[in-house]
Order: sequence, then structure tokens, then C-alpha cells
Amino acid sequence: MKDITIPGGKNAEKARKLMRVFSPLTGAELEGEYPVTRLEEVQYAVEQATAAFPVFSTKSGQERAAFLTAIGEEIMALGDDLIQRAMMETGLPEPRLNGERARTIGQLNLFANHLREGSWVDAILDPADPDRKPFPKPDLRQMLQPLGPVAIFGAGNFPLAFSTAGGDTASALAAGCPVVLKAHEGHLGTNALVSRAIRLAAERTGMPDHVFQYVVGDGYITGLELVRHPGIKAAGFTGSFSGGKALLQATHQREDPIPFFAEMGSTNPIVVLPEAMCLRGDVIGQQLVWSFTLNAGQFCTNPGLILVREGDGLDTLIDAMHEAVLTRQSELMYGNGIRTNYDLRSRELLQLKGVTLIGKGADGGPLDGQATLAKVNAVDFLIQPELQHEVFGPFSLIVVCPDDHSLLHVLRSLGGQLTATLMAEESELHGREDLMAELIHRCGRLVWNGVPTGVEVSPAMHHGGPWPASSDARFTSVGTQAIRRWVRPVCYQNIPEIFLPLALQSNNPLHIWRRIGAEWTKEGSGMRDQG
Amino acid sequence: MKDITIPGGKNAEKARKLMRVFSPLTGAELEGEYPVTRLEEVQYAVEQATAAFPVFSTKSGQERAAFLTAIGEEIMALGDDLIQRAMMETGLPEPRLNGERARTIGQLNLFANHLREGSWVDAILDPADPDRKPFPKPDLRQMLQPLGPVAIFGAGNFPLAFSTAGGDTASALAAGCPVVLKAHEGHLGTNALVSRAIRLAAERTGMPDHVFQYVVGDGYITGLELVRHPGIKAAGFTGSFSGGKALLQATHQREDPIPFFAEMGSTNPIVVLPEAMCLRGDVIGQQLVWSFTLNAGQFCTNPGLILVREGDGLDTLIDAMHEAVLTRQSELMYGNGIRTNYDLRSRELLQLKGVTLIGKGADGGPLDGQATLAKVNAVDFLIQPELQHEVFGPFSLIVVCPDDHSLLHVLRSLGGQLTATLMAEESELHGREDLMAELIHRCGRLVWNGVPTGVEVSPAMHHGGPWPASSDARFTSVGTQAIRRWVRPVCYQNIPEIFLPLALQSNNPLHIWRRIGAEWTKEGSGMRDQG
Repeated sequence: MKDITIPGGKNAEKARKLMRVFSPLTGAELEGEYPVTRLEEVQYAVEQATAAFPVFSTKSGQERAAFLTAIGEEIMALGDDLIQRAMMETGLPEPRLNGERARTIGQLNLFANHLREGSWVDAILDPADPDRKPFPKPDLRQMLQPLGPVAIFGAGNFPLAFSTAGGDTASALAAGCPVVLKAHEGHLGTNALVSRAIRLAAERTGMPDHVFQYVVGDGYITGLELVRHPGIKAAGFTGSFSGGKALLQATHQREDPIPFFAEMGSTNPIVVLPEAMCLRGDVIGQQLVWSFTLNAGQFCTNPGLILVREGDGLDTLIDAMHEAVLTRQSELMYGNGIRTNYDLRSRELLQLKGVTLIGKGADGGPLDGQATLAKVNAVDFLIQPELQHEVFGPFSLIVVCPDDHSLLHVLRSLGGQLTATLMAEESELHGREDLMAELIHRCGRLVWNGVPTGVEVSPAMHHGGPWPASSDARFTSVGTQAIRRWVRPVCYQNIPEIFLPLALQSNNPLHIWRRIGAEWTKEGSGMRDQG
Repeated sequence: MKDITIPGGKNAEKARKLMRVFSPLTGAELEGEYPVTRLEEVQYAVEQATAAFPVFSTKSGQERAAFLTAIGEEIMALGDDLIQRAMMETGLPEPRLNGERARTIGQLNLFANHLREGSWVDAILDPADPDRKPFPKPDLRQMLQPLGPVAIFGAGNFPLAFSTAGGDTASALAAGCPVVLKAHEGHLGTNALVSRAIRLAAERTGMPDHVFQYVVGDGYITGLELVRHPGIKAAGFTGSFSGGKALLQATHQREDPIPFFAEMGSTNPIVVLPEAMCLRGDVIGQQLVWSFTLNAGQFCTNPGLILVREGDGLDTLIDAMHEAVLTRQSELMYGNGIRTNYDLRSRELLQLKGVTLIGKGADGGPLDGQATLAKVNAVDFLIQPELQHEVFGPFSLIVVCPDDHSLLHVLRSLGGQLTATLMAEESELHGREDLMAELIHRCGRLVWNGVPTGVEVSPAMHHGGPWPASSDARFTSVGTQAIRRWVRPVCYQNIPEIFLPLALQSNNPLHIWRRIGAEWTKEGSGMRDQG
């Protein structure tokens, strides 16, 4: 197998900057040194990805599916070494990482099946009409084609499912785009293991060299260099708002605009309506505390804002949440800076005008995130926009609104959200379509009487929302539709049958769903003789 | 009917800058004065569009379809006044404008039918699985929802079909997005007439006030102000590269990124392979000259670059093109600056190294565009990137390549294109899949043995290509898929049947095509009782 690090050419002998990883569990330096990728090596990687593109993009769906399945198998073959390394690097508990590995492999297999089924290319066929006046109508057929090499940024909070072989990589490879990954500096050992699995799978299934490569760097420089390179045709990022914004601005420095998908998290507001609060405020309170403290609140769908109306039931809700928070065990946060930042941000918010602490969870180790619940009234919330910023960690803020009007006002003040949740009785939502419309205009996913944490990997999932939740609300980073981020339609006009991609040939040899006129069908088009 | 100009508030009495239109036919100032929209009025227009959005976006598909159909009717009701005004303002011949009006109304009706059919919302339903372990699988359903108010820029070369009520406006209104149009300064009278028709149609079909507004300004300032406004959620432009680029950069100055669709034209390369050239070089030559000189070459799909291989047949092709060009009558160009610019650019190119003139068409009036055919060899083409820039007008350049390798090299040097065309015999393309792949990676539409001018308005059309042909190769500005520019998916999780949009309700009351699992169906989902 070829070495997965990038050859340094004539400068390889020069002293190289090395990165190490610190364990959030012990604070100690972990085994392993990771050479920082030089800028000329970043360029070389993109050139290699560009060279791999024509070969990789013309592999059949079946072939790419075999590649994705093989990646999953090679990840499993890493066995407990992978889980142990990820635990040491992120501090996430073993069951969580086992679950995440299952999710990662599930995602790879989901995309493999999506490719095998084949209809994702969105084939559309318009029959010709040679007799039309004044001009004959041509035969037109369109399908999705991959964009080219893409840059993916591994996320810190999901070292497997949103990192090296996570949903971004899986969907890009599924689409036919070579990947250059910026490894997350918090889990470089985990990344090296998974990268090796990907390269083994590529070799085993006959994929071109350099279909997957990774680069290492601290700070933003390596990543900025990557997205500015003209050979990169799209980029995907999951992480902080500041990180996403810096990369977005770097793409603006390019001559050509590229699709850039940053999923930056949000406060995921929960609206609890009065009847629901009266009837089951205690249950809702327990659910919400469980959701915002899960894995130390390190989910991008963490419910950080709870909007309620003053009145009966509010005390029940707050009491239940208070009680649940107090008994909540603290959990380790996944990176060194993350806990410091969490403490700082939650303390800052508690000092803002009108913000009062309801309760804190048990205080654990020095790297744990301590559950924190606070409240504020609507007026103080509205005059302090800082209260809208996400606190990454187990923090949630109850915003108490005196009436419906005020609740709507608070809602309208919010930026874009990944999710919005309604805790309500059906009866109290009739005639309140305005409330639902406001929520929908602000989010990518609307949840009814549930919690937003838990992002199903399925066709109808949409994980992305209006700015600042994500940089492009039109695309999802979770679920099969995530493949749409890396493709564009191409139209074929009067192309002879023999030169058409299989997906567009008249007799539909792939037996996929295609749109012909206004109908979807798995039949052939009858558009042209097969002679 | 409310006045369609924007109220100036307390400043209305102040002296206002007025614009007038000059006729390219006579050079004379035409009747009519058009007040330049003040910047505060641009802001006011966006605020009004924002206020119209919640009402307009929740109108049913049937209601919006009625609105679009009514626009077409009101445009027809303008009768010959519209055609005469457009002729005076653009110099385009009457049959061309009659055809363009038919195309405009055809587009409006196409989108109306698209809405009536209803499947365009791309509904996807994932059944719940309450028994799944460790967590129940929720009920997830997604569909496309409109983005919000959009800014549209009227194009100069199509005063009807790509302007006030053109494809951009029609698709945005179809999607449920209020439109603020920047009127093209070359046909302000035509714009005023068509805008009035839209407003009459809105009133007649019960659409909210301000569902359509327009602004007037010279230079870029008004347009830049428009796309920078936070209330604008997407923008569409058809025009020059410099115009598109300036607007793109203005969107970069926003806090939030927005979808921006600029269709900026391209050189639309034609590759003529040797056998085809030998067998029918004369016919191909006549076709190409007809295509690149049509309406003075004022199409964004004008074939401005013809790549050929030296050898038998080349003389036949060049002789045929030469002869056809010489007998080609010049035609009027549509704007005052357009002809000047055409003369300047075509003269500049003819002075570049190795570029030789093959022939020119008849010279007509002072505002006509004179057909010009030139040639250059591959090496001189490759070392002078200026030769790749579009010359807007009846200009085409033959690039003579000594061999296949050189042809591929020239091809690879090209930027993104709206279209690419292969003139070839089937037999000579076998084993040349590399050629086809290179073309596909560079274009939005691949044409076989035809001309790229003539852009069918249909579901499989794709009018858009990699940069610099357009700012976003993933979206089309022509055909029913153009509606996708103005929407984003929203996911509904466990939402009670009664609060779901009709398109997502289990029994499929709209009888639209929906995806359930991997299948498309018009049946109900059987996912939930209707109780």
C-alpha cells in the first residue's frame, strides 16, 4: 500500500513541524507524532485529487458502492484499537464511540445502497418532437454529475461520524468526488487509523490512487489554503461559527465561487406552549434536561433556548428542570479548549442583565462540563443579542415571555436554526399557524413534542438551516440527500444512445426511477429505438 | 390599482433624477421619463417584499398558478403597444419580439402547469418505526419551501423572456418568493408596461400587494444596494461577466451568504471532428454561420469558438463558412453601447498574434453588428488567454489544431461553458470517451450535431455551466428546474397530520409524486391513520 502521507519532494529531509495530541482525560501528551502538511504539499494533494477525478467519477455506482462498503469493513477491522484511541483523544465514553462507529458504518452502507439503487442521479428525459414548428424539439436528458475534488473538514465533536470517514466524506465519495480531508487536530491518531482504512479499501476495490488524502495543520492556515486552491470544487465543514465564517471568507478570495457547506450549530429553540406545560410540564422538563446535557451538550442540535409563556405550568416546568439538572452528573468535554471556552461563555452569560441561574449539575473532573440552567425575561433577552449565541456545552436558557405577542417577538428576533421544536397540545395550536410559519422560516427541521438531539440518517432528514446555523440552508449534511452537495446537472442534447451514460439510455438498463414528462417511472422511455 | 412606483415618502416632492431611453434604431430619445429609485426606496421595497412573503408563500400552488396565467393574459392584453415599444427600445425585429412574447407567456404557463401538477416540491416521506432500538425512529417528511424575497436583474438581450416577467421572475413567483426587479435601463418603457401587467394580474388573482416591485437606476449602485439588503434571500442575474462579478462581490459583503445566480454567457465551443468535416463540412459550415450570426449574435449560447483538426475537410468547412459569412446581412444590435463594444472587442481580437480574418458580412447601418469570422492556430490560441473571452455579437473564431493531442490541450485550457457541441460521426467517437468527458466537465449542456442557440424551455434543459459561464453550475435559469433556485428543503418531524402541508399529508390529497423509501409513488403513504 502506498504511504498515505503526502511526499514532500525535495524538501522532505528538512525539519518538519510535528503535532501531538493531548488527552482530555489525563491532560497528558499521547503517543504519536503527526507531521504538519506544508503548503506546497497541500497544493500537490489537490493536483493529485484532480488527476484522480476523471477515473473516479466514471466508476459505476456499483463500483463506488463496493468502495464505501469496504471502507466500513476496514474500519471494523481496526477493532478496539480505534475505539481506544478515539477515547483517549476525545474523552468520549466507550458506548458513545461504539455507537458512533456503528453510525459511521451505517452511513457508508446507506450511501452504498443509495448508489446501488441508483435513482439519486435525478434523471429527467424530455422526448424529442421532430415535427414541432417552427423548430423541431430536440431530445434532452439530464442527470447529476460530480463537481470535482472536494475539501472536507473533520469535526471535533464526532471523531468518527462527522470526521475522516464521516457523512461528508461518505457522501462526496458516493457522488464521485475525490476527497482532500483537513484532519481535526483533536484526534489525529483516530484520523490516521481511519484514513488508512479508507486507503486500504480504495486499493482493495480498484479505486484510483489519491481518491482520498488528508492534510494536517494547526490553526486555520492549512484549511484556508485548501479551500482557496482552484482545483477544489466544493468544501464541507462542521464546527464553530468562527471557523465556518473564516473558511467562507477564504472562498470569497477565489476567482471562481464554489459551493461551501458549513454546519455551524445553533441554539435550537424549544417553544413550550401553556397547555402542554400545564398537562406535562414535569415530563417535558426532564426530557429537555436530558437532551441539553447529553454527552456534555456537545451536539449541534443541543436545545440551548427554551421559550415559554408566563402562567400556569411554568413553575412545574422550571421545578422539574431544576431538579433534573441538580442530579445530572457532569461529563467530560472532548477537547482541551472546549471546557475552558464553555466555562467562560456560560459565566459571561450569567452576568448579563436579568439572567438568573436556576441550577447547576454536579461538578466533576477538571475537564468536565457542568450542566447549567438559567432564565431571563423576554425584554432582557431582546436587548442583549449576545444571549442568542450558542454556548457549546450543557447549557440552556429559559426565556420567559409575558404573553403570545412577546413570544412571537422573541421568535422573530432569532437567526437561522438547525432545528426548532414545538412542545404543545394539538388543541392549542389551532389558529396559531403564524407561530408554525415563523418557526419554519427559521429552521431546517421542525420537531413536534420531542427533542432535537438525535439526527436520523435517512432520506427525509434535513440537517442544515438558515444562516448562521449553516452557510447554505438548501443542503443537508446528514441523510442521503447530502450527496446533492457534490453534484450538478448536465444536459445531453440529441446524444446518440451509445454515448449516453447508462442512467440516461432509453431502455433504462439500470432500472432506476426517472422523470419522463411529469411522471416518474422505472420503465424505459420508448423515446428512441435501440437499433 | 395601486401605483407601481415606490412611494418616496416625505422626500417625494424633492427633485428626482429621471432616466430616458434612446432608440438604437434612430439614436433619438424616446418618449417617457423614468424616475431613478432612491436608496431608501430600495430598502422600502425590500421591506414591503418581506411583509408580502408570509402571505404569498402560503398561497396554494393552484392560486399561484392562476397568478402566473393571469400575468400572461395581461401581457397579451398590452397588445401591439408592447411589441412596438420593445422594438423602439431594443431594435430587435418584430417577428423576433413576437416570438419572444410567445416564449415569455409559454414560460409563465409552463410554471403554472408545474405548480398545478405539484410534484416539484420534492416530497420525501420516511415512515416512523416506534419499535426500533435503542431509539424509536421518528416520522420524517421533507418538502421544498420558498427562501424569501428575491432580487431579479432584467437582461438586455431578451427584453421580454429574460427581463421583467421572464424566466427568473416566473420561477421565483412560482416558488412563492416575492420579487424586487432591477429594471434593465435599455428598455424602461417595456419594463413599465410589463410591470403593470404583473401588478394587474396580482390584483386580479388576490395576491398580496408588493408581491412584485421594480427599481430603476443607472450604473450598478441600485443593484448593489438591492443584493446587499439583508431582506433579500437570493438573487438572479443574466448579463455580462463584469456585471455578474460585481454583484457576486456585493453578496460577499453581506453578513449572511445568499444563493446568487448569474448567467454570464460563454464562448460555447464547437468541436468538429475530421470525418464529419469531410462528409458534410459544407452543411456544418452553413449551420454554424447561421447560428453565430442569428440576431446579431446576441445569444448567450452563441458559438464563438470552433475547434477543428487540420486535415481533409478543413478547407471545405472554412470555405463554406467564408461564403456564408460574406452573404450574411448585418443586423441591428440591441443597445447603444453594445455595438461600440462589439466593434472594439472584435477589432482587438483581430490584432492579436496569429489571428487572421476569414471574412466579414455585409456592413449595414451604424448600429448594426457586422458578422466576423476569424481563425488562429492552437499554439497562438493557448498563449493568448484573451482569445477565450466572449465577444458579444456575431463573431466566431476557428482554432486550428494540428492533431488530437493539441485539440484536447485547447479544450482543457477552456473555462466553464453554458454549452459544448460535438459535430462528429458516431464512428469517429468510439474510443474517444476522453473527449466527451472533457467536454462534459466543462459545460452545462452537451449538444450532438446541432447548434447550441435555441434553448428549449423544458424539464431536462440545463442552462448554466461552470464558472465563468455562470456563478453556480448547479442551477439552471431556463426550464422548469429553474424553480429550484428559490427554495430549500424543510424537514417535519412527528408533526400531527392536521398541521402538515397538504403535500406531506399521509393520504396525499394533492395526488403528487412523492418519494417513500426508495420508491416514487402517487399513492398515499399508509404511514399514519387519518383519524
